[in-house]
Formats: sequence, C-alpha cells, structure tokens
Amino acid sequence: MARPILLLVQFDGTDFHGWQMQQSLRTVQGVLSKAIQEMLEVAPTLYASSRTDAGVHARGLPVLFYTDKDIPTHGFEKGLNSITPPDVSILQAVEVSDDFNVRTSANGKQYCYRIWNARHAAALQSRYAWHIPYTLDIDAMNEAGQQLVGEFDFSSFRATGCQARSTQRRITKVHASQEHPAEITVTVEGNAFLQHMVRIIVGTLVEIGRGARRVEWMAEALKQRDRTAAGPTTPPHGLCLERVHYDPCPFSPEHWTRTHRPSVDSV
Amino acid sequence: MARPILLLVQFDGTDFHGWQMQQSLRTVQGVLSKAIQEMLEVAPTLYASSRTDAGVHARGLPVLFYTDKDIPTHGFEKGLNSITPPDVSILQAVEVSDDFNVRTSANGKQYCYRIWNARHAAALQSRYAWHIPYTLDIDAMNEAGQQLVGEFDFSSFRATGCQARSTQRRITKVHASQEHPAEITVTVEGNAFLQHMVRIIVGTLVEIGRGARRVEWMAEALKQRDRTAAGPTTPPHGLCLERVHYDPCPFSPEHWTRTHRPSVDSV
Repeated sequence: MARPILLLVQFDGTDFHGWQMQQSLRTVQGVLSKAIQEMLEVAPTLYASSRTDAGVHARGLPVLFYTDKDIPTHGFEKGLNSITPPDVSILQAVEVSDDFNVRTSANGKQYCYRIWNARHAAALQSRYAWHIPYTLDIDAMNEAGQQLVGEFDFSSFRATGCQARSTQRRITKVHASQEHPAEITVTVEGNAFLQHMVRIIVGTLVEIGRGARRVEWMAEALKQRDRTAAGPTTPPHGLCLERVHYDPCPFSPEHWTRTHRPSVDSV
Repeated sequence: MARPILLLVQFDGTDFHGWQMQQSLRTVQGVLSKAIQEMLEVAPTLYASSRTDAGVHARGLPVLFYTDKDIPTHGFEKGLNSITPPDVSILQAVEVSDDFNVRTSANGKQYCYRIWNARHAAALQSRYAWHIPYTLDIDAMNEAGQQLVGEFDFSSFRATGCQARSTQRRITKVHASQEHPAEITVTVEGNAFLQHMVRIIVGTLVEIGRGARRVEWMAEALKQRDRTAAGPTTPPHGLCLERVHYDPCPFSPEHWTRTHRPSVDSV
C-alpha cells in the first residue's frame, strides 16, 4: 500500500521558472522530482498545494507524493536535503492519512509581499523585496486593504490569462506593516487565490499608498470585475508563500515561529 | 582640486571573489571601478576601509575615491546605482574633508556572523547564514567570548597566510544572541581585524557552544599565539561587515537603524 508523504518545501525562487515542471527550464518541481527519483529509483508524481510563478519564493510549500518504500520520514528529510541544491530545502517530511488532499484539505494560505522603501536599492534586499523609492502612506494602504476582506468576485485582481472557472474568493486579511523605516511587509490571507492576485492587490495598494489614487479606488476596482480597473502587477521577487493552513497542521509548530530571514542586531 | 568622495557600499558577496581587484575574476572593486569609470570616463583609484574575503557580505563598506568632476553626491548615488548590478548598491555618497583617510580615520568595525541553527538547512537562509544542525549553548559561547575582550596578541586567530606585521588587536565586543529559536547572530567589534579573525573566533565559539571544548579553551587558545590552538575557520557566507565607525559618522544615521534583511510577520 502506497504511503502518502507530505513534504514542507522551502525555496528561493530567484533562479526558478516557478513550481511547475517545464521542458528544459529549471523549476522547483523538476529539481524535487529528480531528487526523489534519485533516492527512490522511481519517478514520483508530485502534488503541490499551489503553483508559484517564476521568481516567487516559498517559506513552506506543502508537496505530497506516494511511495511504497519503507523509509522513515526523517530518512526522506536527510536523504532529499543531501541531493537538492541550496535553493531548495525540505524542512520536514510527515506521513499523512490516506484521505489527506494537499489542495482540498487546505483551509487557507498566507502570502507576504516585501517592499524595500528607501531612496536607493539595497544589494542585500534585492532578491526578496521590491524597491520603492517614494514615500508610502501605510495607513491609507491598510484602509484600502480592508475593503477586500470578505468574499467577492476578484475578476479585477487576476491575470488576463488566468484559467480559474470561478473568480469568487474569500480574503481574511490584508495588512501592511512597517517593522523598520525601510521595510514594509504586506500580508495577505485567504482561502485561495487567482493567478497574480496578491501581486495585483499589492500593486493597487501601492498606487493608493503613493497618493496616485484615493483609498476608495480599491472598492471601485473590486466592483468593476475588470482587470484594467485595478493597479499594476508587482514584480514576483517580493512575494513569498509563507504558509498553507491545514486543521490540524501536519507540521511541527517550530516552523512558524521562525522568521523568513534572520533579522539583525542593531548597531 | 580633486574632491574626496566617500561611498557607503552594500554588497551580497555570494557571487564575488571578495573586494580586491583580480585579473579575470569578478570582484566588488572590479565591478565598482568599472561603474565609476563608465560614469566619469576616468579609471578611479578606490580605497576601501577593509578588504573582504570571497563570499563575505557587506551591509556598509566605506569606499573612497577622488574626482575633479563637479557632480553632486546624489548624482553619484543615482548614476552609480543605475550601472551596478543588483548585488552591489551605493547606499550613500558624501564629500569628505581632505584629511579623511578611509582606513586610519576609522576607530572601529562591527561584523556579524549568522548561524541558522535548525535540524535542516533552509533555502532562504542559505546565502547569508551558516547551517549548524546541533544544539549550541549560547551562554557558554558568551562566557568564552568575554575572554577575548581587551587588547591582545591574536596570532592564534589569524589565517596562516596573514601578512599583517603586528598581531596586536583590541576587541571591544563579542556577543552571541538568539533572536529566534533557529537564528543565532555573533556580533564582534574591535579596532581592526587580522585575516579570517572573526571566522576563527566564531569557529572557536562554536566548538565551545556544541560542548566539544570547555569555556576556558578560548583563553588558552589566545595565550598559545598559534593558529593550531584555536578552532576551525567558519565558512565565509555567514559573515557580514556591518559597519565601520568614524567619529563623527559621515553617513546618515538612517542606515544603522535598518535591518540587514527584512524580518517577517509571525503567522
């Protein structure tokens, strides 16, 4: 009987063409499949809780596969981490029940979009944050973000090529926080997301934050159900899939108490 | 009359063979010289406050050059940032007085060495922190670190190839802090450093932290004045030159209130 193994996968998306396997392009699915095949000598089918676009990062992407091999979960962690390149890591492997579905069992997702808000770009931020040199009104962004909390048709906030049949989604949180003068993080949570949805939400918030649009523009854009009514799509490298929620959570709680990247002692 | 221009340079050392120009290797000095030459049409001589080894990062490296051109400092910031690749940024350019010497005017330096202390490596940490899977005793490390504070002959803590004539250095701070369960930062401050000195100090602290050596080993190693008496040299990618101190500081205070990399909202 095949055992369902769920991996918590972290990756730096900079050098990947997204999650999904593509002929002759480096993708996270491609690298992970190859590592599992090297370990198990069988090509696995991988089921990810989300696809991520090229350049987007994941602090913890749940990925499911099935195996007949009698390898303990810590054996998968050690074995796969010894094969994967530094930009892909297996934080944890757990065996889940047969009825666990990596997509439909999820009851929510959290994304963070990071902005480096300073006069000049900073080399140590360049992989993980979008540089914005102008001042942003965080309060206006938060007021506008509140207008998206609820269940709505998010047609205005999806890529023109998005294939999803339903455009109804439930957003539970949109919050911009400024941990340090130059560091702004927009956290977006919801039950599921359309293609580019978080990046278009952030693009719309930034138009409001820089004063190019009024706070009310967000609700108006939502109402239009038309992609051209909302703001631009922000670049992918500021975006990180932070967490996929399951109840109960199959992973150890320690993964959610760590920061994405180490903070620094102040001087 | 040539104007002395001081740049505050940030770089991600991952893809550089250190600071110093080398024939046919990518170095920070090489990239920066080329950018200045492209802007000024004259090859500049660059004076850095420190050389950094291959793989080491800098949050703020002061670099001095002279120019006859009547370009305002914000022009250098904008112009150079438009030419440099994403892993090198000019945070600020200031004009300094003629008697300013980027090396001898400095009265101290701060380095941070970052450790990712978790069972498995994490992709989003892999460029900036050394992964250590075993438990570290932070209190023991701090007790040992205190034994280095003062002015001593640091012969035990320098690379065998180090060319410095004097091995006397003054250390003012060695402190390990654990901001989050998996994130340990060792901060080392002093008046100047020998080659690999911070990395050997951290390597010795880690031997003590993991229980392989007693706390007293640090003082014993210092006394020996022999490289083989101290711990191993840690890998370069955990190390970052955070700040070079001048009195008064020629740069804006805002640069020292920002973190190295954005921290994350907890989930």
